[in-house]
Amino acid sequence: MIVTLTTDFDGHYVGIMKGVIKRIAPRVEVIDLGTDVQPFDVKGGAFVLYSSYKYFPSGTVHVVVVDPGVGSERRAIAVKSRNYYFVGPDNGVLVPAAREDGVVEIREISNRELFLEEISSTFHGRDIFSPVAAFLANGGEFEKVGGKIDNVKELEFFRTVGEGRAEGEVLFVDRFGNLVTSLLEGDLTKKEYVIEFEGKRLRARCVMTYSEGREGEILIIKGSSGHYEISIREGSAKEVTGLTVGRRFAIVDP
Amino acid sequence: MIVTLTTDFDGHYVGIMKGVIKRIAPRVEVIDLGTDVQPFDVKGGAFVLYSSYKYFPSGTVHVVVVDPGVGSERRAIAVKSRNYYFVGPDNGVLVPAAREDGVVEIREISNRELFLEEISSTFHGRDIFSPVAAFLANGGEFEKVGGKIDNVKELEFFRTVGEGRAEGEVLFVDRFGNLVTSLLEGDLTKKEYVIEFEGKRLRARCVMTYSEGREGEILIIKGSSGHYEISIREGSAKEVTGLTVGRRFAIVDP
Amino acid sequence: MIVTLTTDFDGHYVGIMKGVIKRIAPRVEVIDLGTDVQPFDVKGGAFVLYSSYKYFPSGTVHVVVVDPGVGSERRAIAVKSRNYYFVGPDNGVLVPAAREDGVVEIREISNRELFLEEISSTFHGRDIFSPVAAFLANGGEFEKVGGKIDNVKELEFFRTVGEGRAEGEVLFVDRFGNLVTSLLEGDLTKKEYVIEFEGKRLRARCVMTYSEGREGEILIIKGSSGHYEISIREGSAKEVTGLTVGRRFAIVDP
Repeated sequence: MIVTLTTDFDGHYVGIMKGVIKRIAPRVEVIDLGTDVQPFDVKGGAFVLYSSYKYFPSGTVHVVVVDPGVGSERRAIAVKSRNYYFVGPDNGVLVPAAREDGVVEIREISNRELFLEEISSTFHGRDIFSPVAAFLANGGEFEKVGGKIDNVKELEFFRTVGEGRAEGEVLFVDRFGNLVTSLLEGDLTKKEYVIEFEGKRLRARCVMTYSEGREGEILIIKGSSGHYEISIREGSAKEVTGLTVGRRFAIVDP
Repeated sequence: MIVTLTTDFDGHYVGIMKGVIKRIAPRVEVIDLGTDVQPFDVKGGAFVLYSSYKYFPSGTVHVVVVDPGVGSERRAIAVKSRNYYFVGPDNGVLVPAAREDGVVEIREISNRELFLEEISSTFHGRDIFSPVAAFLANGGEFEKVGGKIDNVKELEFFRTVGEGRAEGEVLFVDRFGNLVTSLLEGDLTKKEYVIEFEGKRLRARCVMTYSEGREGEILIIKGSSGHYEISIREGSAKEVTGLTVGRRFAIVDP
Repeated sequence: MIVTLTTDFDGHYVGIMKGVIKRIAPRVEVIDLGTDVQPFDVKGGAFVLYSSYKYFPSGTVHVVVVDPGVGSERRAIAVKSRNYYFVGPDNGVLVPAAREDGVVEIREISNRELFLEEISSTFHGRDIFSPVAAFLANGGEFEKVGGKIDNVKELEFFRTVGEGRAEGEVLFVDRFGNLVTSLLEGDLTKKEYVIEFEGKRLRARCVMTYSEGREGEILIIKGSSGHYEISIREGSAKEVTGLTVGRRFAIVDP
């Protein structure tokens, strides 16, 4: 069985989570999934999970610790979906992935018998989420995690598409500076567009591959997640445009 | 059996160590532990190991390669503690963890039969530490590593606590810019303090969770390792204070 | 069986590749190898693979996705060498490693039955290379990958050695700023040299270990890969010299 980790921290904090899981579930394999989430970026974490979870074997337990509210009253939740388990804070980060796969049941994580003995106020990834994930990956009963709940904090990707105008937001910025947006296949049908935001107007061209782009040209390209991305061939669209995660924009006819 | 890696280098150099271990011990699982140690930062490496080692299953072999003296006359050592093996350079990096767990025996790594055939002068992580760790994780006898030794290079975390004044040092800076200090639970009992260093005086407040902090406020918070941390909610305490690893400070009554 | 990953991207894109491989080949172990390749740096990727592949167990499948031409007409190839499989784009990145190990057969990857159902134009690492690697690691027949080919795009490391003058190029820059060059053991036999490039002349000294260097001194040292490296003790040779990957230089008698 596999547990994946998506976190907005790195290094030995992730290493410790692997140790906790292996102590409880020696045969479970722990795989780094979202190691590229920026600190406190709940929306980016939600996108990373949403665009990745389904490539893993059925039964995988996906743990997400992007948790700026750790230690406050935000709940910890576990979601059983059609093919996976999701474990993390109740701040919306699990929602787009779990909804797409089909939510079967949601429980608040509250059974202290599953946790580490001491619970810190800052590292529930170690003390709560890892041991609960190990319990589930070991075949533990979902009901034992805690009581059933019906409503969770929602999180949506902003997107409205009209005549000659599609509005969206940046969901993620990758290492290359490519801007992954909330716009989906079919939202854009022409070759030439203008990207508008905060009074700026930037010309852009829809292409199929990076290699079609000319140097410095702003490109709109269908990314590997099915979302449109704003890119620059061998350059950083983030730096050139100034857009970053959560910023809204419109793509309009020129 | 598990081998963990804590190194001040990254990328394919770590990948090569995994290859070396898997060649010798195909069933051993290699887990990244301390991938967040800064280059040459022996003290930071010592802290990372010390705050992480005990979360792993009993019998785990912890390898640490934070080794600015590689190729010089510093010794390579293996430590058998009550629950773990530790393998690394004799520069103090293994000491706080091994001492806490309880040292059973220390040996100088000198049995060349265990090493790779060619020993470079710059990468003992590959040529010496990885094959020795694989040997131990495979169930090899600890005595075969080399001769028993009694004294090793020491490394301590600076900390003195008096009336109305606690002095410590920064042990580690995480990705968020939080400053992990040598001060421990119980060293600070009030709500308001002043942090003093190099002529500066910064007001700070003890809180339980990040979410209690106001924007820009300097917080003192019990971190997940049991050490006090100097933090700023959704900001970098490193940038704001100018403190970094090894820098000493005092926390005094206001 | 082991699959290694060498990529010029990181984070969840690498995580997704692991998911794809584990779905097809649940018992295969996926190991991060070259996580330190700079975006679009085909030469650096070639060096990373070349200096690492042979430390892994025989039968390992090495996947490399440093692929600026993805989605264009560049071919995808699989190479069977004496001890390994190599899978990646036909841009030269696999060549130095595969040639050194001894090429047995090269095939163009073209059997769509092995791919994911939908093929994106930007992420062949997920859609093509990962499933093909999983197929091979699972014991699939090499012939099924696609048709045999004889010529691939070449990639060589520039190096010419003459009387009192050795010319080379920078192949890789590590996290410390050390410059790994194409010059090999035996190319330099003296103690003192001058490094020349673009009108600059920098004095440098050949040493065996970093610890022999004086502060700020430019050192030439035989690196762990057998290649000479230009280094500065506890400093960044990249910053001090201004050299970077692909830049040529001469090392001459002073």
